[in-house]
Order: sequence, then C-alpha cells, then structure tokens
Amino acid sequence: MNFLEERILKDGIIKEGNVLKVDSFLNHQMDVRLLDMIGEEFYRRFADKPITKVLTIEASGIGIAYAVARCFDVPMVFAKKAKSINIDGDMYKAEVESFTHKNKNQVIVSKKYLSADDHVLIVDDFLANGCALQGLISITESAGASVEGIGIVIEKGFQFGGKSIRNLGYHLESLAIVESMDAETQTVVFREQ
Amino acid sequence: MNFLEERILKDGIIKEGNVLKVDSFLNHQMDVRLLDMIGEEFYRRFADKPITKVLTIEASGIGIAYAVARCFDVPMVFAKKAKSINIDGDMYKAEVESFTHKNKNQVIVSKKYLSADDHVLIVDDFLANGCALQGLISITESAGASVEGIGIVIEKGFQFGGKSIRNLGYHLESLAIVESMDAETQTVVFREQ
Repeated sequence: MNFLEERILKDGIIKEGNVLKVDSFLNHQMDVRLLDMIGEEFYRRFADKPITKVLTIEASGIGIAYAVARCFDVPMVFAKKAKSINIDGDMYKAEVESFTHKNKNQVIVSKKYLSADDHVLIVDDFLANGCALQGLISITESAGASVEGIGIVIEKGFQFGGKSIRNLGYHLESLAIVESMDAETQTVVFREQ
Repeated sequence: MNFLEERILKDGIIKEGNVLKVDSFLNHQMDVRLLDMIGEEFYRRFADKPITKVLTIEASGIGIAYAVARCFDVPMVFAKKAKSINIDGDMYKAEVESFTHKNKNQVIVSKKYLSADDHVLIVDDFLANGCALQGLISITESAGASVEGIGIVIEKGFQFGGKSIRNLGYHLESLAIVESMDAETQTVVFREQ
C-alpha cells in the first residue's frame, strides 16, 4: 500500500452514492507535504518522457499540477471552466460534464499556452467517468501537442473512465485505484497495482 | 523594482477597462519558479506571525496559497465558489462579487478546516475592489480565527479595495501595487513601497 492509499484509509470519508470525500487533505484543505509527495511520485513515473508542460483543470487540479510541474521544471497550465473577460478569444474548447456538480461546463485553454511542440502531462485529482480528462485530451490534441501521459491521484476503478482511456492507448497512472467502497462500513478496497 | 514588478512589465498585457492580463505566468499558465519566489517572499514578510493556515479562494489563488503554505509548513485551505455535493452542510459562508466575471458567488469553507485556534494568512492573486478578500476575512472571523495578515500578488492601487482593508487595520502586503496603467501605450506605473 502506498502513501496515498494509506492516507485515504486514514482520512477519507465514504458517502452514499460512491462519493469519496478527501477534502481534509486533497481538495478543500490541502496537505502541502502530501502534495509535494504526489508531485515527486508522478515525476518518478513519467521521468523518461520529454514533458514540456503540465495541464490540468481548475480548481482542485491546480495544486497537483503545480507540485508535478515543479519537479519537471516546466510551466503548468490550468484549463478554465467558463469564459472570462480576461481570456482572449483565441482558445481551444471542449465541453465537459461534471460528475460532482451534475452540470456541463465549457472548458477552455488559450492557444498561446499549448502548441504542436508541446509534450503534455495531464494531471487531475479524480478520474471517474473520464469526462474532464477527455476534454483535456481533446484540447491537447487540438493543439497538435502530444499527450505523453496522464497522472490521476484517485481513480474510481468501478467507473468506466480509466478503462476507456487505457483502451485508447494512453499511458495512465493512478496513484490509488478504488475498486469498491462501502459507506456503511467505511471500507475501501484498492486495486493491486 | 522587485521580481514581480519586473515580470509584469515584461509579460503583462494591458487591456481597455483597466484589465491587466498576467495569464502567461500567473493565472492561466503558471510559472512554477515565479510561484516559488512569491511563496518565499510572503514567508519573509510574515515570518514573525504564528501562521497555522493559509486561506485563499479558488481558482487562481490555489497555486499561490500552496507556494506560501509550503514555506510555513502548514495546511492551505481554498474557499469554494459554489455548493458542491461533496461539501458537508456545516460551513462558513460569504457572498462575493467578482470584478472579472461580473457575477455573485456564494463562497464557502467547511467548519472543519477553520477554528478559533487558527492564525490565518489570507492570500490571493488580485486585489481590486476587495470583495473576494472581504469574504475571506468574514469567513475567518466567523470561525473565531485571527487574520494575521493578507498577502496579495497584484493590487490595483487605483481601486478602493486595498485602502479600505488597510483602514480596517489589517496587515496587507502586496507584492506589486499598480497606480495606473495605459492600454494604448502599454505602460504600468507601480506605487513606490
């Protein structure tokens, strides 16, 4: 069991509806030492790739992307979820449905920050049905950039996102894959990796 | 002129309507080395305070808060802008108007992550009219925690937010204070500090 799986068992809370709450250390309050370790672990797993940029989506992906980008010493870019007056018109777009919030968002990245020369590592906190990730992949490929790898902190292995992304041939690494969880007994079973 | 002012002059873009775009290094693409320096500079300015938590608001504050929290070796917490099914009912709330997006958001922090024992450093990327900051101060004080200081990356000195926060007696440090800017000539004048 790795450091993240241990932390999930210690501080994660399971709610009905297959909701795993990790907001005490990952996506509301953030444990900066844990984030540092997550960054280092993704660096170790993708160190052989010529990463030029780390891409994520706001908001909870930002801390993770920063931790990873520090290790690679490359810029990170976060996709934004709504059109802002501070973003130029010239941008890549994808439509993304949120499992958590049950709504659809336009996701955008300025064309200035992704180009055909980029080798992109995509990172995010959760992978469930994979909608957010598909949006980030679509944006990266629209730019002509290559998706060198995908790093997910917690994958819900019982939903189809991870499987479909791997079937498409992407190199996907998840630090913890939850096979099943039970709100009544507060138990989590991880996939052996 | 400090490292941030130099970077703003080099890479900032001024748009009509007093919009300063720093999305090439601060709030869309993020320069992780610059973020590290921002974290270290805020640490230097608030090192004498007994900080137990760094508080910000999603999304672009997250990278900054992480950089600062790393230096203090304390957790960071980011306020969320909308009610999520993953947040418990028991939370502090404030209403915040966005200068950038011209809308109102409910801003929330779970009561689990701020308490009367906390000594809070609030950080954010921009300070203009101060609405977001007032929301974070209100949330901190609702928790009975003390606002030990406020760290802002870029303050728009020609708007009233900074002045009113300082008038209220808070220790506010801004790394760059823009006195004026001109979209036509692409010039920025900083306040001498």
